[in-house]
Amino acid sequence: MDLSIVGTMALDTVETPFGNVKDALGGSGSYAGCAASFFARPGLVGVVGEDFPEEHLASLRSRGIDTSGVERAPGGTFRWGGRYETDVNVRTTLFTELNALERFDPKLPDDYKKTKYLFLANIEPGLQNKVLDQCGSLEFTILDTMNFWIEGYRAELDRALKRVDAVMLNDEEARMLTGRGNLRAAAAAALEMGPRIVVVKKGEHGAMMFTKSSHFALPGYPLETLKDPTGAGDSFAGGFIGYVASRGSADEETLRQAMVAGTATASYCCEDFSIDRFRTLNISDVAARAASVGEAVRFSPLEWK
Amino acid sequence: MDLSIVGTMALDTVETPFGNVKDALGGSGSYAGCAASFFARPGLVGVVGEDFPEEHLASLRSRGIDTSGVERAPGGTFRWGGRYETDVNVRTTLFTELNALERFDPKLPDDYKKTKYLFLANIEPGLQNKVLDQCGSLEFTILDTMNFWIEGYRAELDRALKRVDAVMLNDEEARMLTGRGNLRAAAAAALEMGPRIVVVKKGEHGAMMFTKSSHFALPGYPLETLKDPTGAGDSFAGGFIGYVASRGSADEETLRQAMVAGTATASYCCEDFSIDRFRTLNISDVAARAASVGEAVRFSPLEWK
Repeated sequence: MDLSIVGTMALDTVETPFGNVKDALGGSGSYAGCAASFFARPGLVGVVGEDFPEEHLASLRSRGIDTSGVERAPGGTFRWGGRYETDVNVRTTLFTELNALERFDPKLPDDYKKTKYLFLANIEPGLQNKVLDQCGSLEFTILDTMNFWIEGYRAELDRALKRVDAVMLNDEEARMLTGRGNLRAAAAAALEMGPRIVVVKKGEHGAMMFTKSSHFALPGYPLETLKDPTGAGDSFAGGFIGYVASRGSADEETLRQAMVAGTATASYCCEDFSIDRFRTLNISDVAARAASVGEAVRFSPLEWK
Repeated sequence: MDLSIVGTMALDTVETPFGNVKDALGGSGSYAGCAASFFARPGLVGVVGEDFPEEHLASLRSRGIDTSGVERAPGGTFRWGGRYETDVNVRTTLFTELNALERFDPKLPDDYKKTKYLFLANIEPGLQNKVLDQCGSLEFTILDTMNFWIEGYRAELDRALKRVDAVMLNDEEARMLTGRGNLRAAAAAALEMGPRIVVVKKGEHGAMMFTKSSHFALPGYPLETLKDPTGAGDSFAGGFIGYVASRGSADEETLRQAMVAGTATASYCCEDFSIDRFRTLNISDVAARAASVGEAVRFSPLEWK
């Protein structure tokens, strides 16, 4: 096992202008795990209920994901329902049933504790700290969070931010976390909170990475087919941490490449519902998309008269 | 003279969270002209009223811009007033007084007719066609337009689109022009309307360029200081066409570099009100910003285990 991913496992009911699914495999952990699995062998920590189909776990395992960290708890699985408008940037949450997630108490199996790379997907910051307490010596950890935790769980979140290498947020969350409207100022403020890397995800507009001395940015990959953007951010994070783990390094050059890896896996994620697009992909598809991402920003230095 | 720019000249009254100006030099032609002037010698075609300060024309000339194509007409100058919210992507137009612009009938001086490069900034499409009628043999022409013309002046716009090499739009306009929500599909549809190049401007999110066989994209430059985004799109176009004119080529490689040039000039434009930031810049500042834009998207090819 090369890395651990702690996140949600869900049954998603999603409606987009291009179709719909009911009780499909979802959750930040599922998406991140699938995306990471193209680069490295992830172990997944999460909780599901009695109703969670065994075939979903089997399909994660078929991608090389270790699911021994997934706990099956009494009651139902976390369920989320959402609808996307014609402009898929506009999303309405139809329902959220926490169920088993409400009593989630992540426990890392012993071999997970030895991994050097960790992605703490969006869960309650107190649980993220509990996971960090269980880990051995980590080389690179990414933390994701959301508006709800930023507003209501600030002390635990601040504590967690001091313990990780990178925080990954969307632009709205970055502004909320820091109270700064300007994205560059927001990133600078977030860097003061502990992490040495701030990644800002901007959906179809791509992603940016800030350190105290540099910034890196990639435009989003312009998709011909976009069916369902659910999980794109988690697929970005999964591709990112998976690439870092596969290289065994987190220097600036590797992190820039990881941004490309994440852009590639996030773009694929949107091409179908749930994790379905990942089912038929192989590593050469991901490499081809990464090359396209590179080709789209390639230019020769300007020439001056 | 290396290129002609036909656009508006305005007196702008602008309020942003960072300050305000009254009757400042504005208009698509002014911004595009200033931005282009770092790369080549532009000639400007536009109309101003009796109230337009001579010092504004003098400041354009001091940047090497030929203003013999600027007509002084009876009555007042085109005036625009706008306010930007804390999120500067949200803009409210407070007033629009067309004045002299209402009777604008662009006439190109003889030496303008000989230039090989032309930027038709956002004016009534019928006038854009009139300008094209006056031009000799052009090597590269860019057309900009807006929602108002797309909705109400479609026949003239369609005719103009068949006569230009590139159309430059924001994302909303691209969707309106083509009726396609997906940006890649919208670009493909716009390419069917005549131009061989479609550039989609996305404000702080950067810009994309599509041809029938390729796409290129740049993220926006993350500004530390943003005072007023008015004119950024026109400054992008001006930097773009100025670079193309300076190289005397419009092949794919040059156009990619022109996207970088436009990103650099557009980012500078936002750092102060009106064209003020351009007053103190020199070519090495623009080169440094272009290099930063390049550094922000630079990465080594991914390595695969």
